[in-house]
Amino acid sequence: MTGKSCVSVEQFDKELVLELCKFAALLEVTEIASSHPLDELIVITAFFEASTRTRLSFESAALRLDAKVISIPDGKTTGSAKGESLADIGEMMNAYGDLVIMRHTDTNSINEIHEKLRLPLINAGNGTGEHPTQALADWYAILKWNPKLKGVVKDDEKITLGILGTPGSMRAVRSFLEMSLLFKENIKEIHIVSELADPLGAILTQKLEEADVHPHITNDINEVISELDVIYMNSIAFLGDGYKTLDSRFKLHKGSKLKSDAVVLHPLARLDELNTNLDETDHNLYFTQAHGAVFVRQALMISMLDRFDRLPDDIPFV
Amino acid sequence: MTGKSCVSVEQFDKELVLELCKFAALLEVTEIASSHPLDELIVITAFFEASTRTRLSFESAALRLDAKVISIPDGKTTGSAKGESLADIGEMMNAYGDLVIMRHTDTNSINEIHEKLRLPLINAGNGTGEHPTQALADWYAILKWNPKLKGVVKDDEKITLGILGTPGSMRAVRSFLEMSLLFKENIKEIHIVSELADPLGAILTQKLEEADVHPHITNDINEVISELDVIYMNSIAFLGDGYKTLDSRFKLHKGSKLKSDAVVLHPLARLDELNTNLDETDHNLYFTQAHGAVFVRQALMISMLDRFDRLPDDIPFV
Amino acid sequence: MTGKSCVSVEQFDKELVLELCKFAALLEVTEIASSHPLDELIVITAFFEASTRTRLSFESAALRLDAKVISIPDGKTTGSAKGESLADIGEMMNAYGDLVIMRHTDTNSINEIHEKLRLPLINAGNGTGEHPTQALADWYAILKWNPKLKGVVKDDEKITLGILGTPGSMRAVRSFLEMSLLFKENIKEIHIVSELADPLGAILTQKLEEADVHPHITNDINEVISELDVIYMNSIAFLGDGYKTLDSRFKLHKGSKLKSDAVVLHPLARLDELNTNLDETDHNLYFTQAHGAVFVRQALMISMLDRFDRLPDDIPFV
Repeated sequence: MTGKSCVSVEQFDKELVLELCKFAALLEVTEIASSHPLDELIVITAFFEASTRTRLSFESAALRLDAKVISIPDGKTTGSAKGESLADIGEMMNAYGDLVIMRHTDTNSINEIHEKLRLPLINAGNGTGEHPTQALADWYAILKWNPKLKGVVKDDEKITLGILGTPGSMRAVRSFLEMSLLFKENIKEIHIVSELADPLGAILTQKLEEADVHPHITNDINEVISELDVIYMNSIAFLGDGYKTLDSRFKLHKGSKLKSDAVVLHPLARLDELNTNLDETDHNLYFTQAHGAVFVRQALMISMLDRFDRLPDDIPFV
Repeated sequence: MTGKSCVSVEQFDKELVLELCKFAALLEVTEIASSHPLDELIVITAFFEASTRTRLSFESAALRLDAKVISIPDGKTTGSAKGESLADIGEMMNAYGDLVIMRHTDTNSINEIHEKLRLPLINAGNGTGEHPTQALADWYAILKWNPKLKGVVKDDEKITLGILGTPGSMRAVRSFLEMSLLFKENIKEIHIVSELADPLGAILTQKLEEADVHPHITNDINEVISELDVIYMNSIAFLGDGYKTLDSRFKLHKGSKLKSDAVVLHPLARLDELNTNLDETDHNLYFTQAHGAVFVRQALMISMLDRFDRLPDDIPFV
Repeated sequence: MTGKSCVSVEQFDKELVLELCKFAALLEVTEIASSHPLDELIVITAFFEASTRTRLSFESAALRLDAKVISIPDGKTTGSAKGESLADIGEMMNAYGDLVIMRHTDTNSINEIHEKLRLPLINAGNGTGEHPTQALADWYAILKWNPKLKGVVKDDEKITLGILGTPGSMRAVRSFLEMSLLFKENIKEIHIVSELADPLGAILTQKLEEADVHPHITNDINEVISELDVIYMNSIAFLGDGYKTLDSRFKLHKGSKLKSDAVVLHPLARLDELNTNLDETDHNLYFTQAHGAVFVRQALMISMLDRFDRLPDDIPFV
């Protein structure tokens, strides 16, 4: 990933995901602060679409590596609110930092900023596009839970995946589904829980065809819950600025008929689709998921900025 | 205070206040930056209710101790604005920092975030609840002005305190009044200046009863001004989003019949209740109060994060 | 500039501008981070009028010198929005930082904050007043393009300047024009392109009279374009919150009849008055201008905070 931007899951193959997860795992247990890996580098967190959780996650990841941070916490007061092009904002950033983390409501924002931006960029969410580092964090958690999935498992060890949401229009969900395709040999079945008849859209449908993966669509989680090993929950109640009421077909709680060793993911924030009464159970992988996200993002930043030489000797690295 | 949160004046006894003030005084005169006391720690300033003054005060205090800061400057764009629980935000913060400073419009916010938060937290204002570090800053200034109050003074040296505001609903005023009870043996009388008949409310009234302290309520500062040694002014013109016009019964200026050696406190920001023509007089303790607040907050942070071992040798500490 | 505020171009003579530009040029080529020039200092970026570009420029400049930064990214949630005086905000800043960078919608804000502020301040734009560091960045770029202008050039080497905008009410334009007067001996003619009959206003008109400089006013850039050596473009489409449509008399693009070696400046952000098809041409000095702004601001900050002694030995300095 050296010198490159991280904008789409399409940049990843299984091997790269495993490398980054291995690196993240080492970062999680190694005292790294005293090596000052990103010393003298400036990370620009450009959240034209505000997000406290993701912004703080990246800022914490960067600061713990001794980078410095400058921040656009909200797009409303920026030049882009007045009509300035993202290309020009990209040119501006070339002068101010070394790495950009960007979230934007416009799916085409990644292309636009790259007309001029010469710094590596991490896409933290572009409209209905992608959210690749979230998918990395998701799979980092899954591989922690079941390390065998790093290799190729036997048929009876394959997992059944449940995804709540609309991959075709929800970027975190799309990225998760696409990254899951890299592990398809270990996946028995994918169930997508959505109220829409076609939650995938044309492009994803084609990708799945090409990958010879055929998810089953249902509009009720309870129909499939007892088959699921990994359940990817989502807050789907918000559509744009409106809020719609979910019913039990899209909610998970302690009483749901989960397999005894099933685990739940959720990129958070959540409303009531994922009941807090699951927090203290062994099904809760979503807090691990959130904690691990910082290390995955650190692994990515050190790689993109080529600062391997700064790591302490006890992190052996390829 | 090691490892604990600082959420209420009720956590303090007179001895702890004196310890923190002594520590703050040492920090004020000792060059501490080169010891990097909070090195490698991240302070999260979570201002769901925005406040430039208090946020900058904490950020300056933290940065001067070499901590790093990540910031939520305003709650409007956060997940909580969309319905995310503070408990979940607390869980998130466990992954991102080492200490939280929080201000929130909801009085119950402190309880809610502590459902999940495992980091020490400083309450920078919770609805109509408390503002304990402001009270510490207030008394730090008073003790600087009259160090004898650290001990037990003779009857004729006791001070008369005037408090403008509504302790029952104004958190800084409540915290100041409650902290003053720790010094009650040195206080002759407390006058509360408020337009309300009951500016205390039931809970405070009870605490005062238990402390055997009986404030005198008046609705005109001029009635009592010539008896006051310490006058705690406040901006009471704002109630919620509305503004009401104050009259001279709630204002202080050079012409007010202050005792010659009386001092004035004000947590600031101020409107016209505290006239700028008092700024250049000896009555002005409010600028000292503001400047000292940074050191009191530093003392608290070093204590809570147990970084005493990082202090230079010339700060002898218990 | 040691210990002083930088509020107006009137503080500069040609010699000081050249010194700062020389210093900026050294900073641009010298590895300075390891000297930590502004170590232990806190820069407060107070953007009561939000501006991503300028704020990030200063924050990047400060962080690369190892200063720390605390930020007011937007004035809407500050005490001043509620009626707190800028004087009181200045007193507050005395306690929190070492240098203030301020942008404000009110032209009188610089005077008001100086009633109490004791820290050096850089004016990043005050209403319709000035924007001195932008003018410094502008001339830093011009002197890079034509170093002879540092001295006194022969008659046939004098430049013709074109300025699009309303110096009388647009602060960056005003500051640029005023700083250009310091180089008047090298300027043959100044053309101001504005739709107003009097784009200068009374005060500027007087200053120009006193400087014996007589700009020519036109309302069509195409009338004068082929004489211009340096063209200072501006986004004039915004007046307050409204937007007006510009026509070709106020636009520049590849097809405009520019002199072959003419250069274009623009403080950015831009709309369509400066066409992107000029970006890849040799006329583009505006990206150099933006990149150089960081170093000019660094030169100013090191000077104002008197940190020359921290520079590496290979920056010889007066």
